[in-house]
Amino acid sequence: MSMDEIKRLREEIRIVTEEIIRAISKRRILAEKLGEAKKALGISPIDLDAEAELRAQIAKIASENGLDPEYAQKILSLLIQDAISIQQPQTKPRITHMDIFRRAKQLEMSGEKIYHLEVGEPDFGAPRQVAETLSWAASHGYAAYGEAKGRPELRKAIRDLLRENIGVDVSEDQIVITPGGRFAVYLAAASTLRPGDQAVVIDPSWPLYKQVVEMMHARSLVIHTRLEDKWRPKHEALDKYLRQKPRTIFINYPNNPTGTTISSTEMSELVEEISRTGAYLVSDEVYMDYCFTDFTSALETGYERTIVINSFSKSWGMTGYRIGYIVASKELADRAARIVSQLITCVPEFIQIAAVRAIEDREIPRSYGETMKRRLEIVSRELDKIGVSYVKPSGGMYVFPKIGEDGFDSAEFALNLLEKKRVAVAPGTAFGDYPEYIRISVGLGEEDLRKGLQILVENLQRTGRQEG
Amino acid sequence: MSMDEIKRLREEIRIVTEEIIRAISKRRILAEKLGEAKKALGISPIDLDAEAELRAQIAKIASENGLDPEYAQKILSLLIQDAISIQQPQTKPRITHMDIFRRAKQLEMSGEKIYHLEVGEPDFGAPRQVAETLSWAASHGYAAYGEAKGRPELRKAIRDLLRENIGVDVSEDQIVITPGGRFAVYLAAASTLRPGDQAVVIDPSWPLYKQVVEMMHARSLVIHTRLEDKWRPKHEALDKYLRQKPRTIFINYPNNPTGTTISSTEMSELVEEISRTGAYLVSDEVYMDYCFTDFTSALETGYERTIVINSFSKSWGMTGYRIGYIVASKELADRAARIVSQLITCVPEFIQIAAVRAIEDREIPRSYGETMKRRLEIVSRELDKIGVSYVKPSGGMYVFPKIGEDGFDSAEFALNLLEKKRVAVAPGTAFGDYPEYIRISVGLGEEDLRKGLQILVENLQRTGRQEG
Repeated sequence: MSMDEIKRLREEIRIVTEEIIRAISKRRILAEKLGEAKKALGISPIDLDAEAELRAQIAKIASENGLDPEYAQKILSLLIQDAISIQQPQTKPRITHMDIFRRAKQLEMSGEKIYHLEVGEPDFGAPRQVAETLSWAASHGYAAYGEAKGRPELRKAIRDLLRENIGVDVSEDQIVITPGGRFAVYLAAASTLRPGDQAVVIDPSWPLYKQVVEMMHARSLVIHTRLEDKWRPKHEALDKYLRQKPRTIFINYPNNPTGTTISSTEMSELVEEISRTGAYLVSDEVYMDYCFTDFTSALETGYERTIVINSFSKSWGMTGYRIGYIVASKELADRAARIVSQLITCVPEFIQIAAVRAIEDREIPRSYGETMKRRLEIVSRELDKIGVSYVKPSGGMYVFPKIGEDGFDSAEFALNLLEKKRVAVAPGTAFGDYPEYIRISVGLGEEDLRKGLQILVENLQRTGRQEG
Repeated sequence: MSMDEIKRLREEIRIVTEEIIRAISKRRILAEKLGEAKKALGISPIDLDAEAELRAQIAKIASENGLDPEYAQKILSLLIQDAISIQQPQTKPRITHMDIFRRAKQLEMSGEKIYHLEVGEPDFGAPRQVAETLSWAASHGYAAYGEAKGRPELRKAIRDLLRENIGVDVSEDQIVITPGGRFAVYLAAASTLRPGDQAVVIDPSWPLYKQVVEMMHARSLVIHTRLEDKWRPKHEALDKYLRQKPRTIFINYPNNPTGTTISSTEMSELVEEISRTGAYLVSDEVYMDYCFTDFTSALETGYERTIVINSFSKSWGMTGYRIGYIVASKELADRAARIVSQLITCVPEFIQIAAVRAIEDREIPRSYGETMKRRLEIVSRELDKIGVSYVKPSGGMYVFPKIGEDGFDSAEFALNLLEKKRVAVAPGTAFGDYPEYIRISVGLGEEDLRKGLQILVENLQRTGRQEG
């Protein structure tokens, strides 16, 4: 070995690097041409079967050349992502429910009365005794750095709650306290996804799942479900998407925005299929206590690669306390706790102590759930009067009706309704490719709900007439 | 255009993809050989000049072939990262200060008295009136979802504070409230770094900077500074690293762990150099109020791509409240707020209201700073007695002395000291390649500090004797 040898190797590396870049340029040009050809024939730019075939071939080439197949797949994923972005520049929804929410806040600040049928925040507020416990804890100095996974007594309380509510035994090591359900979803993504990975999301869905996947530089494989199928993914679709070897699958029952739930049998069948691929299952169960039929947790299946998301926001109305948790295998919980420790150290102790107090009251989640059920029935009755299509919610706090036919733009409808009639609803486009739908939330008091609904229904009838 | 055309294009894409993978395999083998050659000659696997040359050549090839140069650089960065990981498998420090902290907690829970010279948490606690305001706010229902950037009155209070303390005018739009300083650092990284990017970190440094860079799948370019140079980066080193076109540069004055500060002139010169590269400057100023000389904020330079990190943990002892903030251009603040909104919605309202109350008291940060100064002088006196080398801190809450010669293992020393003498210190290896150093923190009361120091100094003398 000598400096000459090093110089020679560097030169060879330079040459092969240039080859790589030239080949990538060539691939880009071909991808552009393919995109144009597909467009001309009206074919979708994404062809999962073609991708699967390419993946198999590349795995073969990689192993023949002594290249780590995982690394080869990562490079291939980046090339595919790039090709897709060339063939179909990503179009973000013009208007999201956050935009409607912000505009509604603006109008409110200028003194207008707004009917909030758009936000996912229940009007309940935290129970009085929870606020009192928070005060007690803060004034007694519970405000220091603590364990990243959370205070042992809170994790023990959650363990007992899970045993009581869903009959599942987990250890405290498997629980990580998070600053809200959103951060719990982020942790699930950050603990399972790497750049170039794929994750399955079932649309219509809460936008956060796709957002965290993007944040991990991974790719969402979106299963588009339909009202006609009662928002259930078709078996063939699921099967096809699982063949893409996604690293992670997100599910959410009771569902936001459709209000559908999952039966124990359906959950078992789903997990059975997922387990065969070895993928992680992220089950967002924050609406657990807003379930008007028997609730099923993914934890009941015993599948080890499950990450359950939960929060205190819906069950105890503690939205602004920003506290939630994940339940997972010890290994995954350890991984998540490391991220918590790096990014926030821990959730404030006084908030955790307040959460322990919340859990002591098992009646509140039940009564909040009943309230949501009653409100959703009010919405159903109103919608039935004018005959729009929707699936009657068996859980959650939303209804997702179809309010227009092909070509309808619910985002425009929502913005108009807000500007002209002071009623805020979330456009279906916020949850996927659903421009004919809106999401109605029942997070507000019954009086306002009735008034807001009244205005909404009048405008839906008018829309209908205009179309007819 | 026809299906045949599509088939043909797919086949061409398959062939060129295989070419890419083959070339990457070849590059990997060459990188391995180069690594071996360098090792045999005792040369570092990282050669920034060679990299810069390769980057320039690739930029040329990319533009000749119509490939987006940004995309080409990203691919090249991934290839380089891969090559480095082959040539030098990343070795994480065996023991970090978090390990020492955890072991100390374990010992404490089993009833042992531990002298905590290792943690960065001041013993002050939050002022009484802050806890009282928190209670008031929680019991008055300030616990709902709020603005992602934070409550306007808190951002206004911070704006006024900045004007008063450092004489800089920023608008409220430029401030984002975060759940602690750690999350602020994460936001700075997440708002500026993409996979394959490079970020400069000046060692010794708080481990978080490198951790968030890794989290973004970017690469840390580490400038190793030396006690002999008073922990200042040499001009040539800085110059060389800036030539790598890093996206982001992290600085931290008053510094953890060295206690050094930066003068106004030095800050101007540094920012002048950075501004020429267009890089983002992340200035962690959480020890602003623990500064025993004139404090200089990066905001004073007016450089638009500056992101300042701050927190309430040190200035008002509010560690467990988990509240901090960033100050940046409106565009960067908007980007950061989007991430806050996605990951945590907002910091709990009652905590933000408590923080407003904290800011009203300008005396507390001053007195906390004076306490730290006094404690650090105690440490200096003790260290001077036994004649170890260190830079006398002009800020912060740490001293970073050299306690051993070549071959010394401070992590082993720290673990031994904890197990046998019940004194916890942070090993230098937690902050970079500094096995001969330890970090002494003065976050504990004076009585315990004196006792802990006494034991530490006795053991340092013994270590010294063993070596002599």
